[in-house]
Amino acid sequence: MTEPVKMDAFRWDRANDPSAGVPLAVVRATSTEDVQATVRFAATHGLAIVPRGAGSGLSGGSSAIDGCLIIALDLMRDIEIDPVTRTATVQPGAFNAEVKAAAAAHDLWYPPDPSSFEFCSIGGNVATNAGGLCCVKYGVTTDYVLGLTVVLADGTAVELGGARLKDVAGLSLTKLFVGSEGTLGVITRVVLRLVPAQRPPSTLVASFASLDHATQAVLDITRRMRPSMLEFMDKTTINAVEDVTKMGLDCSAEGMLIIQSDEPDTHAAAEIAEITAICEANHTTEVFSTDDLETGEAFVVARRMAIPAVEQKGSLLLEDVGVPLPELGSLVRGIEAISEARQVTIAVIAHAGDGNTHPLIVFDPMDADERARAQTAYGEVMDLAIALGGTITGEHGVGRLKKPWLGDYLGPNVLALNHRVKAALDPQGILNPGAVLDVDVV
Amino acid sequence: MTEPVKMDAFRWDRANDPSAGVPLAVVRATSTEDVQATVRFAATHGLAIVPRGAGSGLSGGSSAIDGCLIIALDLMRDIEIDPVTRTATVQPGAFNAEVKAAAAAHDLWYPPDPSSFEFCSIGGNVATNAGGLCCVKYGVTTDYVLGLTVVLADGTAVELGGARLKDVAGLSLTKLFVGSEGTLGVITRVVLRLVPAQRPPSTLVASFASLDHATQAVLDITRRMRPSMLEFMDKTTINAVEDVTKMGLDCSAEGMLIIQSDEPDTHAAAEIAEITAICEANHTTEVFSTDDLETGEAFVVARRMAIPAVEQKGSLLLEDVGVPLPELGSLVRGIEAISEARQVTIAVIAHAGDGNTHPLIVFDPMDADERARAQTAYGEVMDLAIALGGTITGEHGVGRLKKPWLGDYLGPNVLALNHRVKAALDPQGILNPGAVLDVDVV
Repeated sequence: MTEPVKMDAFRWDRANDPSAGVPLAVVRATSTEDVQATVRFAATHGLAIVPRGAGSGLSGGSSAIDGCLIIALDLMRDIEIDPVTRTATVQPGAFNAEVKAAAAAHDLWYPPDPSSFEFCSIGGNVATNAGGLCCVKYGVTTDYVLGLTVVLADGTAVELGGARLKDVAGLSLTKLFVGSEGTLGVITRVVLRLVPAQRPPSTLVASFASLDHATQAVLDITRRMRPSMLEFMDKTTINAVEDVTKMGLDCSAEGMLIIQSDEPDTHAAAEIAEITAICEANHTTEVFSTDDLETGEAFVVARRMAIPAVEQKGSLLLEDVGVPLPELGSLVRGIEAISEARQVTIAVIAHAGDGNTHPLIVFDPMDADERARAQTAYGEVMDLAIALGGTITGEHGVGRLKKPWLGDYLGPNVLALNHRVKAALDPQGILNPGAVLDVDVV
Repeated sequence: MTEPVKMDAFRWDRANDPSAGVPLAVVRATSTEDVQATVRFAATHGLAIVPRGAGSGLSGGSSAIDGCLIIALDLMRDIEIDPVTRTATVQPGAFNAEVKAAAAAHDLWYPPDPSSFEFCSIGGNVATNAGGLCCVKYGVTTDYVLGLTVVLADGTAVELGGARLKDVAGLSLTKLFVGSEGTLGVITRVVLRLVPAQRPPSTLVASFASLDHATQAVLDITRRMRPSMLEFMDKTTINAVEDVTKMGLDCSAEGMLIIQSDEPDTHAAAEIAEITAICEANHTTEVFSTDDLETGEAFVVARRMAIPAVEQKGSLLLEDVGVPLPELGSLVRGIEAISEARQVTIAVIAHAGDGNTHPLIVFDPMDADERARAQTAYGEVMDLAIALGGTITGEHGVGRLKKPWLGDYLGPNVLALNHRVKAALDPQGILNPGAVLDVDVV
């Protein structure tokens, strides 16, 4: 399609990058061949390609650029489950939740669970090596990707890996494309490893009057056990979620942990009891646990609603910094200091168990000064994470918004290595130019 | 060192490639800086580098070539465990078993378990993306590699990833180096993800009078459950192992399955009961199960001894082909046909649960004709695997011995992609030339 009005829906992802450009055309592919034809056309005419799945990205990795061809993969949604090899073969536009549901029909489970799982695509998950809540115990997307079909920069389609747990013939190219954010090729098929259905989890919720107590509880827990979920929300987030859900959260708490154990039989009860004791030793003001699935899920839903709930308060710059776990307290306190210094609200939610935080910087889009202060804080949070030995993005991707900090994080040698691989696979620089790496746009 | 007699120990790996060359020198590195200095010297003087860990490779990936510098990493063996981040930071020369032991001291577990785990190095495991017996449930080496220090072809040392479960900043270069068999860089440090200690397994052993019944039992099991081990030995292997162990294996059986369940509490008993029923439905001639750890481990040790036991019968060409699980029966029958046609003994052991087989082709090294027939069979087994939609190497690596078949397996497009990445990272072609890919030797 080339009608400006229709194309508008394909120009932005959830990062809402105001600098998103105007595409030349949007191609809604229905097959690998469609993608190949589009890429060949782009290569011949020196056009930039921006691939996109569900458009739920948070770093601007699928923002349009002027004059590009957008390859939308939202119509490619087939899912096939093979219970014998315990794999799912999936087209990139299928939603994460749809893959989970198809696997569940065979008593199998696809673990990675971004909070957006009901509206994010598997193609996007693979492109960003997406994480989620259960990763603290079950790993991230790349741990489940066994094979890919990828359309390369010259239009060639290659099949990498497949439904084999073991295959070491040649370089690990499958894994190279995971997390490449559309800069090395366009993914048109994914083979995913599935695992047995998760056991029903027990859930614990604990409130703290001090951030230090909450983060210390996280460290004390991970030193001794391995919960299947270990999430954190700060006061701003708790209040924003309560405003939407009216579920009776403790709005005076400085921090709240939402924890699950899916250990078998009596082990879950023992784990929950130990976590309760740790929270009490760290001065929890209120701790509650339940085996009831519906009650437990209500708290998980509350946690997943955090981003949309905080979004009610203003526009957001969504952070995604991660630190080695022992630095979690320093990171949270440092973010608090940045919030005060820049006079912007920063709500903090975190996949606390693996040190991956999502500071949500709130600003009024009509207030130019506040917008500028929010932008400053956005960079300062990344600087802080780097200083603490952490990463600028744990699971959202670099996209266009975080690119200016990538070199600071990686250092010149690793950045150069990234550029060498990019140049080898996309010598014309037509694949998602401007995302992740700065390359000369065609 | 440069004395020919001393260097001899560093010329071969366990593939015993007769065409191994004579190195110019062997450098036994004790630090990343040692490796950098050696690589810089090699780059300046246009010398080939062959990195090696414990020399336990089975595909000739660390066979010397004439005039090369061998970088031996066997002295770099430090292991540090961090229980809070649940990671191990390991130098490449440390043995797999040493990492397991260090993790176990903190009630943690490093799952990948090649049969050679007591004498293979972590560096070699990462270089080949090694597998093992527990992979059917717990995945392979790459699933546990979070970070690497790598010395590149120009002597630059880069740190990739780290002790963070989530980090998507930049391309997935960590994973690219896993399985690269020394052709992209020299690994000098590895950060591994650890998991909680494995539960004590129950063990089941079942004999079958027909190969078809044994392979059908494998399919019936994997369709319904997920054992923590699912191994196969054929009659030739059973007899070779019995000759060494005298443990009373059923030497008349055509095939034997060794299966473990590490499910919790009563679930293991239920799983073992279901597997027993499946084996009986597939006409097992003898089935035995035990919760006794020592008895169970004796059978696992017997399975791990298969390669050395068969090696008593002659020299070996060690195969490592894998197929999609439904093709396991066709693969085993096809190998039998090749054995008959070429009149060479082929003992078959298999990580049956993930379709990864190790046909061991036995020949008399003094009998030139038999050696030639063995070599023909070696290639025919790979051709068969490719025809069945399988891989030429599941976990040993391509090395030098399997390289001629790599193009047949990958096809021209994927092979070209491998070459492009190799050329981007090692433009001079000095890193392990002749292994995996054919590149112009410097």
